Amino acid sequence: MSLAGRDLITMSDLSTDEIGSLMETAGHMAEAIGFDSPAAGQTFAPLDRILATCFFEPSTRTRLSFESAMLRLGGSVVGFADPKASSASKGETVADTARMVSGYADIMVIRHPSAGAARVAAHAASIPVINGGDGPHAHPTQTLTDLFCIQRKHGRLDGLTVGLYGDLKYGRTVHSLGTTMARLGSRCVCIAPEQLAMPDRYLDEMEEISGERPAQVNTLDEVLGELDVLYCTRVQAERFPSEEEYQKVAGVFVTDASVMERAPESMIVLHPLPRVDEVHPEIDEDPRACYFEQAGGGVPVRMALMSHLLGLEAPRSSFAGFGGKHETRSEPGRARPQAESETLPASAIGECTNDKCITRQERFLEGEWYKLPGDPPRYVCAFCEEALDG
Amino acid sequence: MSLAGRDLITMSDLSTDEIGSLMETAGHMAEAIGFDSPAAGQTFAPLDRILATCFFEPSTRTRLSFESAMLRLGGSVVGFADPKASSASKGETVADTARMVSGYADIMVIRHPSAGAARVAAHAASIPVINGGDGPHAHPTQTLTDLFCIQRKHGRLDGLTVGLYGDLKYGRTVHSLGTTMARLGSRCVCIAPEQLAMPDRYLDEMEEISGERPAQVNTLDEVLGELDVLYCTRVQAERFPSEEEYQKVAGVFVTDASVMERAPESMIVLHPLPRVDEVHPEIDEDPRACYFEQAGGGVPVRMALMSHLLGLEAPRSSFAGFGGKHETRSEPGRARPQAESETLPASAIGECTNDKCITRQERFLEGEWYKLPGDPPRYVCAFCEEALDG
Amino acid sequence: MSLAGRDLITMSDLSTDEIGSLMETAGHMAEAIGFDSPAAGQTFAPLDRILATCFFEPSTRTRLSFESAMLRLGGSVVGFADPKASSASKGETVADTARMVSGYADIMVIRHPSAGAARVAAHAASIPVINGGDGPHAHPTQTLTDLFCIQRKHGRLDGLTVGLYGDLKYGRTVHSLGTTMARLGSRCVCIAPEQLAMPDRYLDEMEEISGERPAQVNTLDEVLGELDVLYCTRVQAERFPSEEEYQKVAGVFVTDASVMERAPESMIVLHPLPRVDEVHPEIDEDPRACYFEQAGGGVPVRMALMSHLLGLEAPRSSFAGFGGKHETRSEPGRARPQAESETLPASAIGECTNDKCITRQERFLEGEWYKLPGDPPRYVCAFCEEALDG
Repeated sequence: MSLAGRDLITMSDLSTDEIGSLMETAGHMAEAIGFDSPAAGQTFAPLDRILATCFFEPSTRTRLSFESAMLRLGGSVVGFADPKASSASKGETVADTARMVSGYADIMVIRHPSAGAARVAAHAASIPVINGGDGPHAHPTQTLTDLFCIQRKHGRLDGLTVGLYGDLKYGRTVHSLGTTMARLGSRCVCIAPEQLAMPDRYLDEMEEISGERPAQVNTLDEVLGELDVLYCTRVQAERFPSEEEYQKVAGVFVTDASVMERAPESMIVLHPLPRVDEVHPEIDEDPRACYFEQAGGGVPVRMALMSHLLGLEAPRSSFAGFGGKHETRSEPGRARPQAESETLPASAIGECTNDKCITRQERFLEGEWYKLPGDPPRYVCAFCEEALDG
Repeated sequence: MSLAGRDLITMSDLSTDEIGSLMETAGHMAEAIGFDSPAAGQTFAPLDRILATCFFEPSTRTRLSFESAMLRLGGSVVGFADPKASSASKGETVADTARMVSGYADIMVIRHPSAGAARVAAHAASIPVINGGDGPHAHPTQTLTDLFCIQRKHGRLDGLTVGLYGDLKYGRTVHSLGTTMARLGSRCVCIAPEQLAMPDRYLDEMEEISGERPAQVNTLDEVLGELDVLYCTRVQAERFPSEEEYQKVAGVFVTDASVMERAPESMIVLHPLPRVDEVHPEIDEDPRACYFEQAGGGVPVRMALMSHLLGLEAPRSSFAGFGGKHETRSEPGRARPQAESETLPASAIGECTNDKCITRQERFLEGEWYKLPGDPPRYVCAFCEEALDG
Repeated sequence: MSLAGRDLITMSDLSTDEIGSLMETAGHMAEAIGFDSPAAGQTFAPLDRILATCFFEPSTRTRLSFESAMLRLGGSVVGFADPKASSASKGETVADTARMVSGYADIMVIRHPSAGAARVAAHAASIPVINGGDGPHAHPTQTLTDLFCIQRKHGRLDGLTVGLYGDLKYGRTVHSLGTTMARLGSRCVCIAPEQLAMPDRYLDEMEEISGERPAQVNTLDEVLGELDVLYCTRVQAERFPSEEEYQKVAGVFVTDASVMERAPESMIVLHPLPRVDEVHPEIDEDPRACYFEQAGGGVPVRMALMSHLLGLEAPRSSFAGFGGKHETRSEPGRARPQAESETLPASAIGECTNDKCITRQERFLEGEWYKLPGDPPRYVCAFCEEALDG
C-alpha cells in the first residue's frame, strides 16, 4: 500500500506502518540536507514538481517549512499567503479553488479557518492534498514533526510517557499527538486547568486504543518526575470568562528554569511554537529544550511526506522502529476507519451542527456522515469529524 | 516577424498568424508538461530567466498560472501580489515601478485597476511586458487561453458560433474574445439582459471585421441550438439600479442541468472563473463543461507566450490551423492599426475623459491620441483605447 | 579574514578592504549576469541555497532585488512580505522568528520598523543575517549599491566630492553613505533646509575619520559646480511643523532640467528611489541621471554579498581599486569598533531611551551598551547605536 497519490487530512489517514515509513524517510531526508552536519549534505538536483501553498489564513511557520521542504527537494512553489489575495474574496468555493490549483501544481497544502475544508479540497482536487491546519480540526504535519523530534531524541516512539501541558481543550495539536502516541504504544498524561481539560472524546479514543485512560492532573509537579516528554501549549486569556480567572492559572502554566531543575535529565521540552510567555527564554540553552530543533525538523518531515505522496520514493516495505505491542491491534483498522464505513447524506440525517464546519460556510456542499459501528451506531461528520448531536 | 522582445497589451498587438503560432507552441507546451497524460511529460531543465509578477490588485488565478508557467519553463519568479506591499503605496508611478522591475527580471506581467496601465509599463520597461488585466480595458492572455480550449475541443477556430452570455457590457473578456473570434473567421451571438448588452463599439468592430453584425438576444433558448461554444460570465448585482431589477435576471442567466439537456451534444461550456452562481456545480461532470480544463490550459498558453516574447523558441513560420477566409483582410493591418497611426499629444486635443484611464491617475504622464483613418478621423486614447468624446 | 558566516547589520561591520572585495565581486557578478550586455551572460547552474526574506514592513525594491539576486545565483527564496502574514501578529519575538527561520533557510534578510531589530535577529540566528533596513537605524546594502554605481561611473571611490541633498536629518541612507565615503577617502557636502540638516553626530564622525568637517549649505547652487555626485533624497511634508514651512522648501529641493544645465558634465545624479517629486522625470534621459542603473546594480551587489556570506566565493585577497590615503587609519579599527569594546548590561547603566529601539518593543530582550574609549567614555546602545543620554 503506497502513499503515492493519496491525501493527508488527519493522522487517521495513516496506518502506524505508514507513520513509521515516513519517519524513516524523514531521517534520510535529514541526512541528505545536512540537518545535523551541514557539510554532509548530498547533491542537489532540480525536480520538476510544483507545490501550491493555499493559505486562507496566515501561518508563517507552516508555510515556510513546506516551501523550504519543496525547495530542498529541488522543486518549486506557487501560492497565496493571505485570503484577501485569493479568489475566495470573490466568492469562489474551496472546491473550485482546489480544482483550479490542480491545473497549476503537482501537490497542494491548504490552511483554512473552517474544520473540514481540507477534506473538501481533497475531494475536489486531482492532485494530492495536505492539510496544513483546518481550524480546530486537524494539523497532521505538526504531529509528524512532533513524532520526528521525539524519535530522534528518545530513539523510539513506544513505551514513553508524554505530558500534554496547558490548553488541552482547544489545542488540535495535543488532541492529535495524544491519540497518535496511544496508537504507537506510548501513554499520555494530561496536565491542564479545569477549564481547559482534555475533552472526553479524545480520552475515550486514547482509552479505546491503548486500554488505559490517560491520567488527568492540574499541576505539573504531580507527574513531572515520570515524564519523557513535556509538550507545552499556550493558555490563552481569551479562553477564560474573566481576566481574574485567567490570572489564577497564567503564571502557573509556565515552563522556566525552576521547572527544569526539578525535571528528569532525559525529559525533553517541546512546543509547537510560536510561544509567548509559557516557555521562558531563560531555558533556551538547556539541552532538553528542543522546540527549535523540533521546528527545524518540520523540513525533512515534510520533504518525506511530499516525496511519498508524489510517488518519488517507494515507501520502505519494512520498518522495525516501533514496539510491536499495538501493531496488530491498530493495523490496518486504525487508518481511517471512517473511510471504510457506510456514508449517509445530510439529507437523510441532518446538517452538521458544528459552527466551524466547512459545510456550514459553503454553498453547493452537501454534508455527509460516517456511520461507525456500535450499538447504537455513532455518526461523525465526514468533513469536520464532530459527532452528530444526540 | 518574431515576437521576441515585444509586449502583449491587447489582442490587437497580435496578427492572426501570430495567434496561430502561439496556439501551435501552446500545443507543444501542453505535450511537454503532460497536460493530457502526465506520464508523457518531457525532461525539465533549469532556465535562467526571471518573471516579475506585478499585481497592483489581487488575482490568484492569473498570478498562479503565470508563475506556474514560468516554473514549468524551468525559470523562476519574483513579484508582489498586493498593492500595499508595493512601492505604489509610497507614491511611485507605474512607469518608475516598471523601470525598477526591468533591473530585477527578464519579463514582467502587470495587473492594475486602471485602463492603460500596462501600456504605460510597456513604454517605460526595457523588458517585455504582458498585460495581466488593466481594469476594464484588456486581459489578452485570458483570450488566448479561451482560444486554446476552443481549438482543442473543436479542432479549429473558424466557422464556429460562439454564444457570449451574461454581462456583455462590462466584461473585458467577452469584448476581446468576440472581436478576436471575428478576426479568426467565427461568428458571435450576444445573449444578455438589456442593461448589460454588448456595447455598440464592439458590435461595430466585429461587423467591420467580418462583414456581419452579431445577433443580439435576451434569452439563451433563442440561439442555444446553434451554438458551438457557450461562454458564460457573471451577472453582478452591483450592475443593476435596484436589487429588484437584479433579481429579475439573476435566476435566468444560469447554466444548469436543464440548460445542458437542451444544448447540442457538441456545445462546450466555458467560463473565465471564478464562478459564483451562474454555472451550477451540478453540470461539472458533464463532458461539455470545460471551464476547469480551460483554466488549466492557461499554463501551456502562458508558457508559449513567454517563450516567444523571451525569444526562447522561434515562432513557427507556417501555421495552417485556421480557415483562410479573413487572413488577407486582417493581415497585417489588424495587428495594432493604432501603432501605425499618427499620434497626437493631449496638449493638442485634450485629456482623456475616461475616469478609469491611467492618464487620469498618474503624475508626469502625458496623454496621447491615435488618429484613426476616416472622415472625419477618429481619435482613441493611446492608453485606455477609449474614443475621444464628441 | 573571510566574510563567510558573518552578518551585515551596519556598514561599520565591514572594513574598507572588505568593501573593496565586495565591489570587485559585484563587478564579476554584473559581468556574469550580462548587466551591461545581456548576451554576454554566463552559464547558470542551480544552487542549493535558500534565502529567507523576512519583511516586517513592505519594501518592494529591497525585497525584489534580494530575491532576484538569489535567483541569479541559482538559489531559491522563501519568506514573507507583510507583518500581518508573519508570526509577529501572534506575539512572536524577532529572536524566535530568527531562530525558526534558521531551520528553513541558509541566509536571511530582515526588514523591520524598529532600530536594532536586525542585530537582535543576528544574535539569535544560526545563519548569516543581512539588515535590509531597520527603521531609522541602517540599511547597509543600499550603501553598497550606491558605492557600486559611483565606482562604475567614476572608476574610483576616493577623492570625490559627494553632495548629499534634501532631508539629511532623517535619512539613514545619507548618514551611512556620508560616513562610508569619508572612510574611503572622499568628501561630502551637505545641502539641506535648516530643519533637515545633517545631525552633529554624523558630522562629528565624518570629521573624525577624514580630519575635515563636511561643509553645510542651504542651496544647491553654492556647491553645484564642484560635485562629482549629487545624491538626492525626498523632503517630506510630514517633517515640517506646518504646510506653509514645507512649501517654502518643497519647490526648491527639486532636481530638474534647469539644475542639470548648470551642473558639471561629469556629475552623476543618484537617488535611493522611490522618488516622488524631488527628481523630475524630464531628466530621466540625461546620461548623468543614473538612478535606474543604480537600482539595477543592487542585484549584482547583493549577489556578491550573499556569495561572500555563504562562503561560496573566497573574497579576493588583494584589491587595488581605492586610494590608499585612509587605508591605514581605518584598518582594521573602523570595522565595528564597538564589537571590540567592553559591553555593559542595561541593568548597570539604564535602558535605551530611543523610542524606536527594538529593546523598547520586545519582551525578554535585555539592553546592552558599548563603552567607547574617551574621557569621559561614551556609551552607545548595542542595538540601535544611539548614544546614552547625558
